[in-house]
Amino acid sequence: MEKSVFRSKIEPQHVDFTSRVSISSMCDIILYVAGLDAHNRGFGIDTLAGKNFGWVLSRMCVELDYIPKEYDEFTIHTWISDYNRLSSTRNFTLTDDNGQIFARAVSQWCMLDFDTRMPVDMNTLAQVHDGTIVDSPSPCERPRRLGAVSGEPIAEHKVVYSDIDFNRHMNTMRYIDIILDTMPIDELEKLQTLRMDMNFMKESLYGDNLQLRGELVDNKRVYEFSKGDAGALCRFSFEFNNIEK
Amino acid sequence: MEKSVFRSKIEPQHVDFTSRVSISSMCDIILYVAGLDAHNRGFGIDTLAGKNFGWVLSRMCVELDYIPKEYDEFTIHTWISDYNRLSSTRNFTLTDDNGQIFARAVSQWCMLDFDTRMPVDMNTLAQVHDGTIVDSPSPCERPRRLGAVSGEPIAEHKVVYSDIDFNRHMNTMRYIDIILDTMPIDELEKLQTLRMDMNFMKESLYGDNLQLRGELVDNKRVYEFSKGDAGALCRFSFEFNNIEK
Repeated sequence: MEKSVFRSKIEPQHVDFTSRVSISSMCDIILYVAGLDAHNRGFGIDTLAGKNFGWVLSRMCVELDYIPKEYDEFTIHTWISDYNRLSSTRNFTLTDDNGQIFARAVSQWCMLDFDTRMPVDMNTLAQVHDGTIVDSPSPCERPRRLGAVSGEPIAEHKVVYSDIDFNRHMNTMRYIDIILDTMPIDELEKLQTLRMDMNFMKESLYGDNLQLRGELVDNKRVYEFSKGDAGALCRFSFEFNNIEK
Repeated sequence: MEKSVFRSKIEPQHVDFTSRVSISSMCDIILYVAGLDAHNRGFGIDTLAGKNFGWVLSRMCVELDYIPKEYDEFTIHTWISDYNRLSSTRNFTLTDDNGQIFARAVSQWCMLDFDTRMPVDMNTLAQVHDGTIVDSPSPCERPRRLGAVSGEPIAEHKVVYSDIDFNRHMNTMRYIDIILDTMPIDELEKLQTLRMDMNFMKESLYGDNLQLRGELVDNKRVYEFSKGDAGALCRFSFEFNNIEK
């Protein structure tokens, strides 16, 4: 089994005010390629006929050695390296036209039974992974487990129409943007390198009232979205070079 | 001079919870093609070397006979039909793979001098349009002039990082989404056909506090964004079939 290869480009709609790709658009590009590869390979879909199962993103990390700018083109390699009872690991490298790998990502996916909203044991679905595993390790440290974030909310957000995607969940890119919107804009202007980790525990739906908490821990900005009594929904950690140096 | 032709497709990131393209993504696709065509043809760029001028959207309308769904593919024709002292008119038709024109759009663009923030007289720039005009009329009624909207604000919005694009203006698509976020979600679910008109008078910038007003006039939903004492910034009108019938 070989890695899948895609070409990609930073389009005008992906850039922020610095004319470089926004962090959320970079994730969108990577997740788009994940969807495309799964679609092209019929990954899991054929074997799931008649079951209301689907892939749900559980954890992800992204590392950027520099922030690509508008019209930059690059090659994305993606492959599934392994799976266990609860999740399947999809990896990514992004290579620029000088042959340099400038970005790496690792994503972990659960299979959700949409009727019960419970994860499906992968071992009962072993054939889903038949012939999909590429014997190549993840290109960077895997997504970290992020701890609870304390303190008072720094922002509140009601989930609206433009936040939700086809399954009526709050979209991953909107979580990222809502966090970035709370940061000083000159931090984002100075951004040179990035490591981001994401943990998704529970979904949020149209009309939900979310609280965002954030704090600085060991030079990392960590954030947690929660929903009243339902507790934590997802957590994010950002390491910016301009914080560390 | 011939119309320019582009292929386009509704990608997963363009759809809303109905798995059909969102109105803002449809505009994004159309405006992307406008930018691409201007870029490909070097429209105005060569002749403007050394001047800090740029194209700014002044008015636009979009008509949709149906709402395309995820993975639908279509052909976009675009052409400039005419210009006057203040603006240049770019037209669009969208044709599905049955050969049916299912959407039409007309956009009017001013040339702005970014040093003075004032419009440039097109007649002093006649060579910009040399060889660009296609002798074919606009495919639908041109963008309407929209009147003031009164009443109390229905929403407020502070312009944040994720709202702005490379020129630090609030992005057109964000205005549309903020309006749609105030509508009952079942209106958007039932949407079958659409005519939208947009008028842009003044820009809004990072940190601005915007007020949104909206009312129902002759079966049209009309909206106005304003900014404190600066007055009206832009206006939008939506005609949905499910309102009219």
